[in-house]
Amino acid sequence: MEPIKTILALTDSYRKLPGIGPKTAQRLAYATLRLTAEERKLFIAALEDSLTKVKKCPHCGFYFEETCPICSDPKRDRSTILVVIDSKDILAIEKTKNYNGLYFVLDGTLSPLRNRNAEAIGIPHLEKEVSDNGVKEVILALPTDLEGETTALYIASLFGKKNVKVTRLAHGIPVGTNLEYLDNLTIAQSIQHRTDMEKGGNGNG
Amino acid sequence: MEPIKTILALTDSYRKLPGIGPKTAQRLAYATLRLTAEERKLFIAALEDSLTKVKKCPHCGFYFEETCPICSDPKRDRSTILVVIDSKDILAIEKTKNYNGLYFVLDGTLSPLRNRNAEAIGIPHLEKEVSDNGVKEVILALPTDLEGETTALYIASLFGKKNVKVTRLAHGIPVGTNLEYLDNLTIAQSIQHRTDMEKGGNGNG
Repeated sequence: MEPIKTILALTDSYRKLPGIGPKTAQRLAYATLRLTAEERKLFIAALEDSLTKVKKCPHCGFYFEETCPICSDPKRDRSTILVVIDSKDILAIEKTKNYNGLYFVLDGTLSPLRNRNAEAIGIPHLEKEVSDNGVKEVILALPTDLEGETTALYIASLFGKKNVKVTRLAHGIPVGTNLEYLDNLTIAQSIQHRTDMEKGGNGNG
Repeated sequence: MEPIKTILALTDSYRKLPGIGPKTAQRLAYATLRLTAEERKLFIAALEDSLTKVKKCPHCGFYFEETCPICSDPKRDRSTILVVIDSKDILAIEKTKNYNGLYFVLDGTLSPLRNRNAEAIGIPHLEKEVSDNGVKEVILALPTDLEGETTALYIASLFGKKNVKVTRLAHGIPVGTNLEYLDNLTIAQSIQHRTDMEKGGNGNG
C-alpha cells in the first residue's frame, strides 16, 4: 500500500528543502495532516506571501517586502561591502550593531563539481556593486570549508588587481568558550592572529 | 533588524511541526524562499489538498482520499484489530503483507502530565470498533516508552474483562542485527521470549 497522493505531494515538497531526507519528509507530511485547519491555512498564506510579497534586493540580494532596509538607508557606509552566502547571515551580523556598511549575498560558493562558477554564484554582479558604490573594502564572511576558502581566494585575487582591499572575519576563540572544547585549527588560528592587549589590533603571530 | 513578516510567518508554520526547533524552522523558512515559484505552488497545492481532499476514516483513523482502503476491503479479517499511534505505522505493517485484519489509530498514548486520558486518545472509540466488528483479538503496536507501556497495560486490562484477547508485537532481535549492537533490554526480552525451532512458536523462557 502506497501513501495517498496528498501525502506523497507533501513529502515531495518537504524533500526539496535542504537537510530534509526521505524519512523526515514523510514524517513531516503526516505531521502536517495533524495540524489544525487554521494552522494549515496560515502556512498556505505564508507560502503565497513568499511568492507575491517577498522581493529580493537587486543590489545586495537581501529579502524585503517594502524597500531594502540596507541599500535604501542613506546612513549606511557605502565604502565597505560584506559578502555572505545566506541572507540569514546578514541578520546575525546586524544584531551585533558592529557593522554599518553594505552587504552582498552570493548564490553559494564556487564549486566546479557542482557546476557553480563565478558567474553562477554572482561574482560579476558583486564586481558591479563594488564599482558602482566606489567600495574600498570587501569583507568576506564565507564558510570555512574548502569551497568557501576557494571562493575567498578567488575574490581576493580578483579585487587585489583593482586595488580594492579584501578582508575576512577573524578566526579565533568564540567568546565564553573553553579552550579544551575547541578544535586544533581554531586554536592554531587564534595563536597566529593573536591581538595586542594595548592596541586591541591584530598581532603578526 | 527582524526578519520580514513572511519569513516570520513561515518560521512559525515550520515550528508547528514536531521535531522542528526555532533554528531549524528559520533555516527552512529561508530555504523556502529559495525554492522555485513552481515548487512553492506545488507545496501550496499539496497543503490545500490536505484540507480539502484528505479524509480520516471514521472507523480506523487512517488517512484516505476516496474510501478507506482497509475498512472498505471485504477480504479483511474483521476479528483482529491492530492498534498503532501513527497512521504511518499502518503502511509499515502493510508492507510486510503479514497482516490482514483491521487497524485502529490512537491519538497518542496515555499521559496524565499532558492531559491525555483514555477519552482524549480515543480508547472509547476503540472499544466501539471492537464490539461493532466482533473483534476477538486486539494487537498492540505501541511505543515501548513508559507512556506506551502504560497505555498497553490499560488496554489489556480493559479488554481482559470483556474476554477479548490482547497481544502485542514481539520484542526481540531485529533480523540481520548483530547482538553486540543491541541494548540489554532487547536481548533480555529475546531470551525470555525465545522461540522453539521445531514449532516456530513462542517458548516459555
